[in-house]
Amino acid sequence: MINHQYRLAARPVGLPKQTDWTYTEEPTRSPSDGEILVKILYISLDPAMRGWMNDVKSYVPPVRIGEVMRAGAIGKIIESKNPDFKNGEYVYGVFGVQEYAISNGRGVTRVDSSLAPLPIYLGALGMPGMTAYFGLLDVGKAKSGDVVVVSGAAGAVGMIVGQIAKIKGCRVIGIAGGADKCKYIVDELGFDAAIDYKSEDIKKSLRKHCLKGVDVYFDNVGGEILDAVMTRLAKHARIVICGAISQYNNTEAPQGPRNYMALLVSRARMEGFVVFDYEDRYAEAAREMSGWMAAGKLKSREDIVTGLSTFPDTLLQLFKGGNTGKLVIEVASD
Amino acid sequence: MINHQYRLAARPVGLPKQTDWTYTEEPTRSPSDGEILVKILYISLDPAMRGWMNDVKSYVPPVRIGEVMRAGAIGKIIESKNPDFKNGEYVYGVFGVQEYAISNGRGVTRVDSSLAPLPIYLGALGMPGMTAYFGLLDVGKAKSGDVVVVSGAAGAVGMIVGQIAKIKGCRVIGIAGGADKCKYIVDELGFDAAIDYKSEDIKKSLRKHCLKGVDVYFDNVGGEILDAVMTRLAKHARIVICGAISQYNNTEAPQGPRNYMALLVSRARMEGFVVFDYEDRYAEAAREMSGWMAAGKLKSREDIVTGLSTFPDTLLQLFKGGNTGKLVIEVASD
Repeated sequence: MINHQYRLAARPVGLPKQTDWTYTEEPTRSPSDGEILVKILYISLDPAMRGWMNDVKSYVPPVRIGEVMRAGAIGKIIESKNPDFKNGEYVYGVFGVQEYAISNGRGVTRVDSSLAPLPIYLGALGMPGMTAYFGLLDVGKAKSGDVVVVSGAAGAVGMIVGQIAKIKGCRVIGIAGGADKCKYIVDELGFDAAIDYKSEDIKKSLRKHCLKGVDVYFDNVGGEILDAVMTRLAKHARIVICGAISQYNNTEAPQGPRNYMALLVSRARMEGFVVFDYEDRYAEAAREMSGWMAAGKLKSREDIVTGLSTFPDTLLQLFKGGNTGKLVIEVASD
Repeated sequence: MINHQYRLAARPVGLPKQTDWTYTEEPTRSPSDGEILVKILYISLDPAMRGWMNDVKSYVPPVRIGEVMRAGAIGKIIESKNPDFKNGEYVYGVFGVQEYAISNGRGVTRVDSSLAPLPIYLGALGMPGMTAYFGLLDVGKAKSGDVVVVSGAAGAVGMIVGQIAKIKGCRVIGIAGGADKCKYIVDELGFDAAIDYKSEDIKKSLRKHCLKGVDVYFDNVGGEILDAVMTRLAKHARIVICGAISQYNNTEAPQGPRNYMALLVSRARMEGFVVFDYEDRYAEAAREMSGWMAAGKLKSREDIVTGLSTFPDTLLQLFKGGNTGKLVIEVASD
């Protein structure tokens, strides 16, 4: 079998270009003892991927030049020489942007296709769901009665953040780009209000929707939107730094939050986190989230694009605000 | 008696100029029932005063144009018509930049001149001491073994922060301007190391002194120094936002911390606070701090300038790094 792959060819300056990738093919090899061979079905596209392409020390090492691009994915085991896994099982792992992956099983987890469609394990029941759950509840300490604002509100993490906040009894305002996304998060997901950053004066709209200020701000975007929310902090507000997608393709140093002294005036806190630190509690979160999904309180949505070869373009959708919900590439049908 | 006063004449742009003040005189009036008349002896000069001069909503309202400039001060009651206070008692209050003050007694506290010289009640046993104590221990949660970095380390708050951190078993690095200040905090106050921001490459020196990163950063200055420290955060670091003196006289929007995404990578927290929130615990802190002073573990230092008329110039010393220790104007001898 031939394995097609996207490898990092060059470190991008600004938005990744076609020439930052090489599309390679090589024969799949058979798994050795202890290994599994996985046929990849769905690949997760995440804003964090942009950071992994930079030669910068971070919470994970950068992808090396020439290496298959790192990505989470769902696949099916087609040959197992690892006693922990059987042929035909569906699994999640960091399998990379390719059609087939060999793994020794470390960090690979089984997913149950009878409980939920496979792509949901890249969304609400996957990393974005875990990120939303622990970021909002553990870092942001959102509680009933809080006013919660989330940016990137129609994205994979933001849409879950807002729904969990509603389940917990918060008032939820989502910031998203465009009328469709804003309508979706209010009408379909039950957010209390939406702010369209492409057409509204964010500060003015925040004043309207958050008369008493913002108790929790879950930030996926950074930049001007972070600055705007920081003008509306309630006393003892918590700002959860999950991402800064507006800054990832900057060619200059990112802009820091200019009015960070609002943290002092509002006795507020800004805190970052990395979801991997919560690994030993994923099961707990997944149980609670599947319960909410079964009860119809939590909806997942995936934006599925077909074909590995779309990868360079599909990735850019994240930075153009092209996707609603979790962006996934379907590599092969089961 | 004639009362001389400094009143705010104009809202400064950049550093306060002589023309931003009016020096006025008016006869002192007698206190009415419930009031006290205070002869002011020592006036506290604080970086925060610069913020009070701006027409911006903050944790206290701005000083109005024409109003006597707000300032904490120590004075002696020369006439009391308030049953809670007696003639001859020494008191602390927000008496303003003037020679005499009338007060109804709200927010006025007695100070004991037999326990410590009066100016110390504007320093280690006053607001700067309280700020250092609660900021370091409550907000920063400094504990034995932590690496603590403090900027403005030879200033009123910074020098106390470093000494309390040493008492608590931390390794302490102070950032200050000039060889004299650096020598002072190491030789006299027992800091483990000092970084002279005027002559050293701060990032390089931080790398040298904080091999394993910074657990607590107590920030009094903001700007480039905050940026530099944020490149050296240890996992789960706490950044205490106490002030941003480098930014107070900016005529443009302040610079936010450019690499605030280090909060994510390091799972770190940046938190602001206002010392007034700890009012009900001042006594507790003062007891512990006087104990340390009596045991020789905590030193206070005041930089005392004589004469109310020096006020406009003396205030500028804060922003030029002119003072070592707590900057105080002696208005009158007792």
